[in-house]
Amino acid sequence: MKLRAVGEDALLASLLRGLPVSRRVIAATGDDCAVVESPGRKTSLVLKTDCVVEKIHFASAADPILIGWKAMMRPLSDFAAISAVPQFALVTLVVPATRSTMWIKKLYRGLQRAASRFDVGIVGGETSATRGPAVISVGVTGFVEKGRWISRAGGKKGDDLFVTGRLGGSLRGRHLRFVPRINESRWLTKNFRIHAMMDLSDGLGADLPRLAKASKLGFKIDREKLPLAVGAKIRNAISDGEDYELLFAISPRDRNRLQKSWRKKFPNLLLTRIGRLAQPLNNSTSQLLPGGYVHFQ
Amino acid sequence: MKLRAVGEDALLASLLRGLPVSRRVIAATGDDCAVVESPGRKTSLVLKTDCVVEKIHFASAADPILIGWKAMMRPLSDFAAISAVPQFALVTLVVPATRSTMWIKKLYRGLQRAASRFDVGIVGGETSATRGPAVISVGVTGFVEKGRWISRAGGKKGDDLFVTGRLGGSLRGRHLRFVPRINESRWLTKNFRIHAMMDLSDGLGADLPRLAKASKLGFKIDREKLPLAVGAKIRNAISDGEDYELLFAISPRDRNRLQKSWRKKFPNLLLTRIGRLAQPLNNSTSQLLPGGYVHFQ
Repeated sequence: MKLRAVGEDALLASLLRGLPVSRRVIAATGDDCAVVESPGRKTSLVLKTDCVVEKIHFASAADPILIGWKAMMRPLSDFAAISAVPQFALVTLVVPATRSTMWIKKLYRGLQRAASRFDVGIVGGETSATRGPAVISVGVTGFVEKGRWISRAGGKKGDDLFVTGRLGGSLRGRHLRFVPRINESRWLTKNFRIHAMMDLSDGLGADLPRLAKASKLGFKIDREKLPLAVGAKIRNAISDGEDYELLFAISPRDRNRLQKSWRKKFPNLLLTRIGRLAQPLNNSTSQLLPGGYVHFQ
Repeated sequence: MKLRAVGEDALLASLLRGLPVSRRVIAATGDDCAVVESPGRKTSLVLKTDCVVEKIHFASAADPILIGWKAMMRPLSDFAAISAVPQFALVTLVVPATRSTMWIKKLYRGLQRAASRFDVGIVGGETSATRGPAVISVGVTGFVEKGRWISRAGGKKGDDLFVTGRLGGSLRGRHLRFVPRINESRWLTKNFRIHAMMDLSDGLGADLPRLAKASKLGFKIDREKLPLAVGAKIRNAISDGEDYELLFAISPRDRNRLQKSWRKKFPNLLLTRIGRLAQPLNNSTSQLLPGGYVHFQ
């Protein structure tokens, strides 16, 4: 059945029916807003919105379950980036009226699967028709304990720079199936003093300079040490983007303890020291990297 | 200058620079998430996202300041609908790379103007290119005191039904300039026991049956009493949509006090009793109305 043959109410109702509802949710879909329990006083509220656009972030023929997965996991990766806990998600679907309802249902299955993985409740949805490509926008609300959130700005000169996982070649498939590093990020801030952190979405070559700039520093990278995904070359690790791995800065004094306890806690996920934060050279970044993916270019 | 000639970072920085930052905002743009102060323990968190799509919600040639205004005011109208207070907004812009930066800047000026009107802080933004029409998605977070939020479901048999303002003909211009009834809604719940409430976005003919259905009731409307916008006919008031006025149910015992104190408090805004909630007839709504605007049809 085509979307245009279904009313918006009926569609939303069928999409959202049966979504698990947490006791923290006071009112969700079916009313004008979602109403949920406030986080406690010892926490701050964390907000993030992101979107995926057909033909930009996914091919039209991609599996809608995976598109939904990616649409949800992208903002969740930003929660990992600052070490926050996501709780509630709102989904805006903008889709051509000619798209099949099956496609939408699968998309929602992917959104739901991804949300469940991190105990996130989808508490609201909005849909609109469009005459162009599909857009899925996901807004996420959650919390972080006061004093625990990690910005990009706290890096210190001489800090080790680490990345999780392997970089490059994500567009061959990983970008639709990645798991945000929320558990790893929470473990890091529970056990270590992380100075600065972010998630790698536009590629190391674009993202690392952002972290360095926010920390008012430069950086030295050992390109030969970059952890490469299967089939990826160094330039892919620097420029491809969509890795959704963590990049963080930590004192070299913590190096041994970090590497040892990481291997024990996450034996299947690589942690690689790729370089360090350094004095800035000139006004620009201290080392030229071929730029990562920059939108609009 | 075209968007594709500007990096995403530079664009977002220039858009978000100079936005007023409340002391409640701990981190906003420039990091991976926005971090803000939690609402107190006596309140619930309220979440809403909505979007406007080029050629669906606005014409391509519309003034971008007004498009931005509308994109922000739509979710704020949902806060009015449940009598909540909006605080923080996240904006996702999906625009063709060929659109001028001036257009985007004006759009943001409209978003900002609308947000300021209700003391809402824009704490995050995301942009993406698209090969199709522009989409502006706005997610808003805020609070409502426990016990104060009004759902659609609390209407009682015999309740008076009131609407604010005038209905119909919104697409001739009002839909780009409306002011959500947040102040009116907060005043109502401060001074009266409102049983059920919503904002009229799809037209009385589509929205009233939703409120009645949520309250498990039918309704009787006096069509001749509908408050018509200049140039609008009864069928416009029922079907046009995008009125963004309040529809609410309240005991007839409060009628006199409500009407009297409303005229005193809001002398320039009409408040009209349009009918009442009644026993449901059959399984459907008790009175046939030509449908309001239903998306996808």
